[in-house]
Amino acid sequence: MNNKRDLVLYIAASLDGYIATEDDSLDWLFNVEGEGDNGISEFYETVDTVLMGKKTYDWIVKHESGEFPYKNKECYVFTRSTMEDTEDVKFTNKNVVGLTNELKSQEGSNIWLVGGGELLQSFLKEKLVDEIILTVAPTIIGKGIPLFNKGDYQLDLILKGTRTFNQFVELHYEVKK
Amino acid sequence: MNNKRDLVLYIAASLDGYIATEDDSLDWLFNVEGEGDNGISEFYETVDTVLMGKKTYDWIVKHESGEFPYKNKECYVFTRSTMEDTEDVKFTNKNVVGLTNELKSQEGSNIWLVGGGELLQSFLKEKLVDEIILTVAPTIIGKGIPLFNKGDYQLDLILKGTRTFNQFVELHYEVKK
Repeated sequence: MNNKRDLVLYIAASLDGYIATEDDSLDWLFNVEGEGDNGISEFYETVDTVLMGKKTYDWIVKHESGEFPYKNKECYVFTRSTMEDTEDVKFTNKNVVGLTNELKSQEGSNIWLVGGGELLQSFLKEKLVDEIILTVAPTIIGKGIPLFNKGDYQLDLILKGTRTFNQFVELHYEVKK
Repeated sequence: MNNKRDLVLYIAASLDGYIATEDDSLDWLFNVEGEGDNGISEFYETVDTVLMGKKTYDWIVKHESGEFPYKNKECYVFTRSTMEDTEDVKFTNKNVVGLTNELKSQEGSNIWLVGGGELLQSFLKEKLVDEIILTVAPTIIGKGIPLFNKGDYQLDLILKGTRTFNQFVELHYEVKK
């Protein structure tokens, strides 16, 4: 157990900053030659809670074959609608500040902010993200779903380290508070 | 002398992919704690020719005190107007493909593509860039002049290496042809 639960944005993007193509394809990402699992399972051990937007949840349900991938974690899906929880996820229409404060007041491990674009921006704007771990894919895709939406926000970061997994580069930052 | 002159995009950007703020400020960049000169003079030795757009040229003339910084290199400034060359730069209204092919047919060292945004996109779209060396600053500025403009182009890259200069991370890629 940590005394302090960090909220971590852990995500992959193209060099030009897209997390998916306009038609939500990730082929440009899955085609990259990495190394092992590119550090994912190591990271996954550090979190016990997973946050995502409804679009990301729908994408996962549609594309992942077999079990829901975050089955052994507490998984919250942000949506504006009222939806019934499943055995895998809790749907929430709380605002991001409210839910984050609630989670951080509880004991636990780190919290993974999975995506997507709109949800990330709310978290960044509200300065709720403690760490950013960005895995950069060696490709420029020209257009798509941006990792960082244009907006009136500014965050200073502290570089914690970099790692390479074959063609991937992992950039690890702490957000200055 | 190289047999093959590479055209190298060597540039710094924020983590969210901006090369300057909307009002052309670079304070967010100059305030970062680096290491030495962050590899600039080492890179500078590898080129004998410098390419930039007119806006970038104007910015340099306005902001750099003292001598023109690329005095000992062959410096081309792309502009749609007809302008008289100075002792420091040659103005050109040739298209990017034409001038690049001309330069590459001559003997010489590598060619540095300095910026800015619009010119970069022409070079990327025409697949004229051989290498990208991107120095990432530890900051998210939310909006500004994008390094990669949105467009219909896609480039696959090969990671050549990474270096860190204190808080800066340098990503070095070769563009797949």
